[in-house]
Amino acid sequence: MRDFLPEEVRRRAFVMRTIAAVYEQYGFEPLETPAVENIETLLGKYGEEGNQLIFKILKRGARAASGEADLALRYDLTVPLARVVAEYRGKLPTFFKRYQIQPVWRADRPARGRFREFYQCDVDVLGSRSMVVEVELCAAASDALATLGFRDFTVRLNHRQLLAGLLDAAGVERPAHEGALVALDKLDKIGRDGVAGELVSRGIDISAGERLLALFTDLSSGAQESAISQNAHIVDRMRAVVDAHDAGTRALSELEAIVRLVESTDAAGRVRIDPSLARGLSYYTGAIMEINVPDLAGSLGGGGRYDNLVGMFLGQDVPACGFSLGLERIIVVMTERGMFPEQLASMAADVMVTLWSADTITDSLVLASELRRAGLRVDVYPEAHKIGKQVRYASMRGVPCVAMLGDEERTRGEVSIKDMRSGHQISTKRSDAPEEIRRINENTWKT
Amino acid sequence: MRDFLPEEVRRRAFVMRTIAAVYEQYGFEPLETPAVENIETLLGKYGEEGNQLIFKILKRGARAASGEADLALRYDLTVPLARVVAEYRGKLPTFFKRYQIQPVWRADRPARGRFREFYQCDVDVLGSRSMVVEVELCAAASDALATLGFRDFTVRLNHRQLLAGLLDAAGVERPAHEGALVALDKLDKIGRDGVAGELVSRGIDISAGERLLALFTDLSSGAQESAISQNAHIVDRMRAVVDAHDAGTRALSELEAIVRLVESTDAAGRVRIDPSLARGLSYYTGAIMEINVPDLAGSLGGGGRYDNLVGMFLGQDVPACGFSLGLERIIVVMTERGMFPEQLASMAADVMVTLWSADTITDSLVLASELRRAGLRVDVYPEAHKIGKQVRYASMRGVPCVAMLGDEERTRGEVSIKDMRSGHQISTKRSDAPEEIRRINENTWKT
Repeated sequence: MRDFLPEEVRRRAFVMRTIAAVYEQYGFEPLETPAVENIETLLGKYGEEGNQLIFKILKRGARAASGEADLALRYDLTVPLARVVAEYRGKLPTFFKRYQIQPVWRADRPARGRFREFYQCDVDVLGSRSMVVEVELCAAASDALATLGFRDFTVRLNHRQLLAGLLDAAGVERPAHEGALVALDKLDKIGRDGVAGELVSRGIDISAGERLLALFTDLSSGAQESAISQNAHIVDRMRAVVDAHDAGTRALSELEAIVRLVESTDAAGRVRIDPSLARGLSYYTGAIMEINVPDLAGSLGGGGRYDNLVGMFLGQDVPACGFSLGLERIIVVMTERGMFPEQLASMAADVMVTLWSADTITDSLVLASELRRAGLRVDVYPEAHKIGKQVRYASMRGVPCVAMLGDEERTRGEVSIKDMRSGHQISTKRSDAPEEIRRINENTWKT
Repeated sequence: MRDFLPEEVRRRAFVMRTIAAVYEQYGFEPLETPAVENIETLLGKYGEEGNQLIFKILKRGARAASGEADLALRYDLTVPLARVVAEYRGKLPTFFKRYQIQPVWRADRPARGRFREFYQCDVDVLGSRSMVVEVELCAAASDALATLGFRDFTVRLNHRQLLAGLLDAAGVERPAHEGALVALDKLDKIGRDGVAGELVSRGIDISAGERLLALFTDLSSGAQESAISQNAHIVDRMRAVVDAHDAGTRALSELEAIVRLVESTDAAGRVRIDPSLARGLSYYTGAIMEINVPDLAGSLGGGGRYDNLVGMFLGQDVPACGFSLGLERIIVVMTERGMFPEQLASMAADVMVTLWSADTITDSLVLASELRRAGLRVDVYPEAHKIGKQVRYASMRGVPCVAMLGDEERTRGEVSIKDMRSGHQISTKRSDAPEEIRRINENTWKT
């Protein structure tokens, strides 16, 4: 887990602020849940591997001696959302559109863009089975990334029921579906032969495994330039495969609706149906999505429909679909590509007020107060050191200008402003100082 | 621990945004530390009672069976800051002015404005012993509260070394000082006789206890109308008491400098020396401060100088002074007093776009996309329900207006906008829609 020094906090805040603003433009409202959940809320929701990665909190007081845990740190933002929806059902609108940008914790091995404390930026819509939901989620996530400056991302799209149809068509038995998907998910990493081996080791009939791989190879071939023609091409091939499969056919028409409607949004041209997309979490029931860029092995985010999860808390299903952007991965790519505004790097203050002498500190404080009332960010040097030392400090801190109240300036009711970049210094009326400082700041950050 | 539904998140974000903006105006930069610290970092910093209130995290994997904890949840923001300063000393400026707004966790019994997960809004300056630091901290905290709309708060000010001087003068032995302060801190709650009894039970000589109480009663008497005359009055009386006490005399001149300089800042008239202010945490070494309002028993915030805490991590002292505002308490008082802007209560979106029919969803999506590009927050109703039902939903959600694309409007390249408050509906050119929606929103929120 990491500390974030000021420059890094500014970068993180810039990304979170941008994403939140876009999410709000799509009509999502903010929700926050506590870092700590009852341990039963989390256990059994993320698979066996997930259970192992949950940080568990020891009982307090005398009960600590038992060595037992009753609480746990939030593992994702989806399960707490499902709990909230079950708990506050009557207070929430029919279509609950919430965003949530908060940290989650996993006792995982750290890797590039992967940490034990990390932030998820989630949007979810509860209460509707309409494909407008999937479309708006793809659009919101795409718009957020585009607003941050990303130009080269792809939204991969698939459907859990379509995957089920393909597995059925290949002759994979239902109980082996989950394992087959885990194996197929590795096609990029371990190749066709590797997957074939893993399918066998997972107890899947060798000929069913072969048919499955042939199907996937066939469906993934013939990549097209544009998303629209690629999607049409894949839908045609898939239709032939799942023709007799009810759930698969319905899934295919849902995907068709999504790729058709999404062309009317800011995600136009970005969404591509990818038959090999599986997504790890077991709670997905319908469409699944993932966003990728060429220079990151993992995804920038992902999501999907999970119509049964709220039912685990409420005893009654509520349709739900969501998308999560990973803050740290976005920041890793933005940092490597130099996508952050330069100004974020150094903006401790707009101006630093010096202390001329120990006897005139009140003058400096009054000046600082005036400049702050004018809306400026004002640092005050805390010690009556030699003025040269104070100015050097401002320079080292990257503050664009320094305000000085020498004996002459005070007598004339003026203030000296030194532009740290040009070294130029002028004396100006106190009332004109805020404008002068603004001008220097604009010039400093323009170049 | 609590969930925060959208309206509450907006109120909390409003307060945090306001405080952060003021802190930045005072030249403070943001820092963030992880929620989880090594348990050794926290143990022994908050006294015995504090140790009991720390949430401890079980070791992971096979080591979980031991029932031991190696990590713990952040208990305040000051100890993590001291750790960071020790860890990153070379990377930080000579005068490190940081603010930090993050949650902390205490396994405490909840009360009004007190929760097990709560946010602290801290500002600290490290690296200077100048009283300009105390003054700027009082000014920043006062300015933050004033910007939120508080008019009736007082900053109480005292000094740990002055308290030591008073205790010495009364003849309380050094080892009993800490206990005597704990007892004196309760003067408001349990009265003079109660404190006298507790002093005795803490093993303090009965005549020393009597002298101490007489001193405090005397010092606290004769409250003056203005902070300036009250402070002058108390300083005079205290000077007589600590005249022969070196540390006490130095402390008194520090307090004099603070109350003199603070009159040049936005905290002018608010800071009152209060000899009975003690502050619970043991790491304070110099000036201590607390902010109170009449209608809250606890404080809205507090702080002080702690010149030795960083030394516990670094092996070398770094002067430090800080102030912490309690988000939840501020919100409790602001809510009870109705200080929040009404607009925060209901602002799901600026406009809701309806779906006219299942066949024309793309038209609605294109319109939503146009309005979002114009900077508006746009909700899209997800189902092609009857239009009356969709409009009623917008009304229930408090959305100021609804955009509809009927067959006629589409033919004419127009859009119908319904003002939900007046019920008035007009048809306008698509390009004029954003302006019309802005106008309706302004009228809705003006009243």
